[in-house]
Amino acid sequence: MIIRRATAADAASIWTIFRAVIAPGDTYSFTAATTERDAVAYFLGPGITSFVAEDEGRIIGMYKLIPNRIGRGSHVANASFMVDPSAHGRGVGRALGEHCLQEALQQGYEAMQFNFVVSTNTAGIALWKKLGFEIVGTLPKAFEHATLGKVDAYVMHRFLR
Amino acid sequence: MIIRRATAADAASIWTIFRAVIAPGDTYSFTAATTERDAVAYFLGPGITSFVAEDEGRIIGMYKLIPNRIGRGSHVANASFMVDPSAHGRGVGRALGEHCLQEALQQGYEAMQFNFVVSTNTAGIALWKKLGFEIVGTLPKAFEHATLGKVDAYVMHRFLR
Repeated sequence: MIIRRATAADAASIWTIFRAVIAPGDTYSFTAATTERDAVAYFLGPGITSFVAEDEGRIIGMYKLIPNRIGRGSHVANASFMVDPSAHGRGVGRALGEHCLQEALQQGYEAMQFNFVVSTNTAGIALWKKLGFEIVGTLPKAFEHATLGKVDAYVMHRFLR
Repeated sequence: MIIRRATAADAASIWTIFRAVIAPGDTYSFTAATTERDAVAYFLGPGITSFVAEDEGRIIGMYKLIPNRIGRGSHVANASFMVDPSAHGRGVGRALGEHCLQEALQQGYEAMQFNFVVSTNTAGIALWKKLGFEIVGTLPKAFEHATLGKVDAYVMHRFLR
């Protein structure tokens, strides 16, 4: 598996993974009504740094890295990750997470914040904790989970040094 | 003082207040480099509900009300407030805050969340607490304060019913 910069040529793969990841309605705010255009812009739009994980020529995951806020909050990074469900359990998320932290450090960010980690996404939360993140906020009933109804979401954070 | 829907005709007043509010660099992420176009779009862009407080024909404050997230997070509102510094101490912020909570309830939101309340903005925090908000998250050193350096920011939240 290699991790490399995403390009416009990855758009179709990104859309395929995006659709598969949001379909269960258990981790991302995007609904099934999200268009291919919006999904691709989310990862490949202007000002967005994105990387893909490629395994034997196949894209199996991606992440985006952006400032969490403009101006006086732009020293904190934000990132979003998606892994092809058929590639789960192979450490793709962890490899992308470690790559992203390194990339953010190189870009000069001082910290990374995830604004909306669904509280029932125990695998995701466990991974972020392993990578040094902690829960710094709890947003009560902020996520409309497709099968569980309204559940909490967490704000997670770590400094990069 | 009346509170009414903002219109395109309020753009110049909104820009004047916006510039005055962000100038000290102590409450908003916007820097002095923010353009009039961006400032006006922040309050009057597509899909944004905004209101102004008008006193004897003069605009002295405004707020915007939007979904805090798309899709599965869109039942939580987000709002931003600005009051002309020369009108401070007259209850404009409180009146706008109460109006906004009522408006959000009417629009069907279930809760309101502020994502980035600067921890040194004691007057703002006191007002939001009076209006029923509580701090649900602390973002360490997330705001580059113009005179104090990096300070924490809070996530504040309240349910509407």
